[in-house]
Amino acid sequence: MQTKLQELRNRLIEVDNLNSATAVLGWDQSTYMPPGGVAARARQMATLQQLAHEKFIDPAVGRLLDDLLPYEEGLPYDSDDASLIRLTRRQYERAVRVPAAFVAEWTGHSAASYQVWADARPRNDFKAVEPYLVKTVDYCHKYADYFPGYEHVADPLIDLADYGMKASTLKTLFAELRRQLVPIVQAITGQPPADDSCLRQRFPEAGQWSFGLEVIKRLGYDMNRGRQDKTHHPFTTKFSIGDVRITTRVNENHLGEALFATIHEAGHAFYELGVNMAFEGTPLASGTSAGVHESQSRLWENRIGRSRGFWEFFYPRLQAAFPDQLGSVALETFYRAINKVERSLIRVEADEVTYNLHVMIRFGLELDLLEGNLAVHDLPEAWRAGYQADLGVTPPDDRDGVMQDVHWYGGGVGGAFQGYTLGNILGAQFYGAALKAHPGIPEQIRQGEFATLHGWLKDNIYHPGSKFTTDELLERVTGEPLRIEPYIRYLRDKYGELYTL
Amino acid sequence: MQTKLQELRNRLIEVDNLNSATAVLGWDQSTYMPPGGVAARARQMATLQQLAHEKFIDPAVGRLLDDLLPYEEGLPYDSDDASLIRLTRRQYERAVRVPAAFVAEWTGHSAASYQVWADARPRNDFKAVEPYLVKTVDYCHKYADYFPGYEHVADPLIDLADYGMKASTLKTLFAELRRQLVPIVQAITGQPPADDSCLRQRFPEAGQWSFGLEVIKRLGYDMNRGRQDKTHHPFTTKFSIGDVRITTRVNENHLGEALFATIHEAGHAFYELGVNMAFEGTPLASGTSAGVHESQSRLWENRIGRSRGFWEFFYPRLQAAFPDQLGSVALETFYRAINKVERSLIRVEADEVTYNLHVMIRFGLELDLLEGNLAVHDLPEAWRAGYQADLGVTPPDDRDGVMQDVHWYGGGVGGAFQGYTLGNILGAQFYGAALKAHPGIPEQIRQGEFATLHGWLKDNIYHPGSKFTTDELLERVTGEPLRIEPYIRYLRDKYGELYTL
Repeated sequence: MQTKLQELRNRLIEVDNLNSATAVLGWDQSTYMPPGGVAARARQMATLQQLAHEKFIDPAVGRLLDDLLPYEEGLPYDSDDASLIRLTRRQYERAVRVPAAFVAEWTGHSAASYQVWADARPRNDFKAVEPYLVKTVDYCHKYADYFPGYEHVADPLIDLADYGMKASTLKTLFAELRRQLVPIVQAITGQPPADDSCLRQRFPEAGQWSFGLEVIKRLGYDMNRGRQDKTHHPFTTKFSIGDVRITTRVNENHLGEALFATIHEAGHAFYELGVNMAFEGTPLASGTSAGVHESQSRLWENRIGRSRGFWEFFYPRLQAAFPDQLGSVALETFYRAINKVERSLIRVEADEVTYNLHVMIRFGLELDLLEGNLAVHDLPEAWRAGYQADLGVTPPDDRDGVMQDVHWYGGGVGGAFQGYTLGNILGAQFYGAALKAHPGIPEQIRQGEFATLHGWLKDNIYHPGSKFTTDELLERVTGEPLRIEPYIRYLRDKYGELYTL
Repeated sequence: MQTKLQELRNRLIEVDNLNSATAVLGWDQSTYMPPGGVAARARQMATLQQLAHEKFIDPAVGRLLDDLLPYEEGLPYDSDDASLIRLTRRQYERAVRVPAAFVAEWTGHSAASYQVWADARPRNDFKAVEPYLVKTVDYCHKYADYFPGYEHVADPLIDLADYGMKASTLKTLFAELRRQLVPIVQAITGQPPADDSCLRQRFPEAGQWSFGLEVIKRLGYDMNRGRQDKTHHPFTTKFSIGDVRITTRVNENHLGEALFATIHEAGHAFYELGVNMAFEGTPLASGTSAGVHESQSRLWENRIGRSRGFWEFFYPRLQAAFPDQLGSVALETFYRAINKVERSLIRVEADEVTYNLHVMIRFGLELDLLEGNLAVHDLPEAWRAGYQADLGVTPPDDRDGVMQDVHWYGGGVGGAFQGYTLGNILGAQFYGAALKAHPGIPEQIRQGEFATLHGWLKDNIYHPGSKFTTDELLERVTGEPLRIEPYIRYLRDKYGELYTL
């Protein structure tokens, strides 16, 4: 059995090498690649993904999984070996339905589409991306068709990011969340807005960059196992458990954008860096779902990074980095500025209260596109209508409207956004469990100490990697199923103190 | 036939995609990868190289080449299709002798060895690299053994870089070159040394970086199809004809190092960027040999970049970039400084006259290592002895001694250095042909105009890619075989004016 398991591992490592190489090529494309490299990069990534897929769906893998079934059944459910075999089987059974040539085509298209978006967005040129998005929707349809019997066409795509989640479940969940959020947003936006002018000064890039790094190093980001580079749209990428990189972009006229994106991406990186090193090179060696991933990024970004205690420690350091801009701005003014609630245009810069409305607009549009109720051609108008209806603002252009997020242009529609809101909900549940285990965490944060929290998250969330599904992990860590109450309570408490609710 | 040719092309593009991906991973390792990524990177590159090799030596490729033979024979020798089939067959017949598993092992070892060298060199720690170099020599032996019947064990390795060249030919060529060079070196070094103190001031990195880029852009480097990044040891790498990148390192206490390395690497890049775009994704789409490659890098670096006319144009710009350091330094002083001949320690910083002695020391040591006449353990001492004997200087440490060049630590001994000296010789022959065709080139250079030279090189050297062997190309362009006289004459003329010869 150990021979068979080793053979499976060897095959999985080869697949991992190809996937990791693809990730390096994608990172390079998003950070440093000159424009002349576009065409070749798309075909390079397509070849790597095709080979990875071919290697993974090799019938020999299926036979090994069959042979290993008795061994797996004799092990505890949560043992490393049983988990590896179980997860590999689940992914194998999904992958084997999809032809390698399709994967190559979709990957090549995605790389090309990304580049067109990166070029077209500054020009506000939706026309340029439109034909690519049409094809993307088509690819997503074709992908779904490999899974006949789905309840909703988006389900196979959602399943890729958040295993076990369905459009119908999300619709119900989101409807309830919306029902509870909208009155809070209304109550807040009916009051005088917070003054965030302190953030809207000139903050030179170099200073923002080094302060952001100082913060995440203090939070626990190990620069020997990662780095930060500039890109169009912040993301985290993993090449191995020892090399998990983040990217960000800097707006010299707004302090918050790069800073909170950096903390957000560091949260993703903590997850991947914290996975059990013994899982390296196997499917276990990554975060278990988009939702749990976002629970970490948004926990660090918001729950920690926008808390008063956090800034009691960091604000004097920030003032020292930007004495001209912030020297005479009080901590409380700054705290209120970074937690200003407003109906705004940009998801990644949205406050915690309105954020989920941004997600829901996108989720709804994704379902409309996939259901065939909305043509790509009409998407910009539908986007504007959605923002007007739900947030009371209308994007002045597509750049900060329908083209603001990379997701749809990086190759996937359906399943791209629900993870953010799931993450907000899950994050509140996980953090509740962390506080229960270590009530001293908030006081430690006030002292700039994050080791207890980081350690608890590592032990409970990061270390298992993909061993457990989202639901299993949640149950193990909190003893509860997914529920929105802790998240809503957190928002009510925090914003009830900042505004009259 | 066109179907078969297309099938061959499709297979070759897949191989190219894997090779290019390996190059991206190598570039990343040398530029941005954090230390934690080392172990995984070695296995990632090994997998890619193994797959590239497997795909290339697929018997189907051999069958296609057989089927295409009549078609090839019906075409002119220099037609694109005939050249593609011919070159592919040559590479196929070489590659098919080498097992893919060996390629993977060697690649993985090379990536690991590179990283150990990059870490150990600043610490002057030869002990750390020694076991890796022992293995490297062993891999080189094993590689050679796949080609039984070789005249010299280094020949199969030299052949990889400089097709058709042999150790015996090189020994004869180098002996003659040495015979002619040594008296020149002796004559010069018996005279008072040039004053190069103007180069040995403090030149902040940012200024050096931007001036270097300004220079190579003027020479014709297209930043839309390339970029420059920092590394331990300057190199050029190609991911496609549209994406050819260079790297350099900066010494803030010496102006010449980064600048001439940048021009040198740009020379390599011009070659790869100038290849016929129709060859993209095939073996034709790269420089034909190490020797011809170096003929371009060293032509731009030295023949052009260290010429008086070049600096008549650029020196006022350099002074403007560094007014404090160079404002009161005369052009002639600067010109003599950058052409100072001295017995020195570092190859890449050596003047044109002594440079080949550095190469010959390395070439001799490579042969000794491969012949088994020198153990890796004794290499540092042999290095010191060689430098004392040939250059009259002894390295104070291994960092600037046997560990100064990446080549042996990046995985290959034998065939790593001869290309530089071949390049010096070839460059003089090619430049002679360029001047014959366009006698106005030196005057244009004085005006900062490089289009005529760049255009002639593109048409004659770059555009054919690997269509012709070194000898064929030389014959076509100059009508001559390889000969050292033009190079020696150039050195005598230039340095005869600077020194008494």
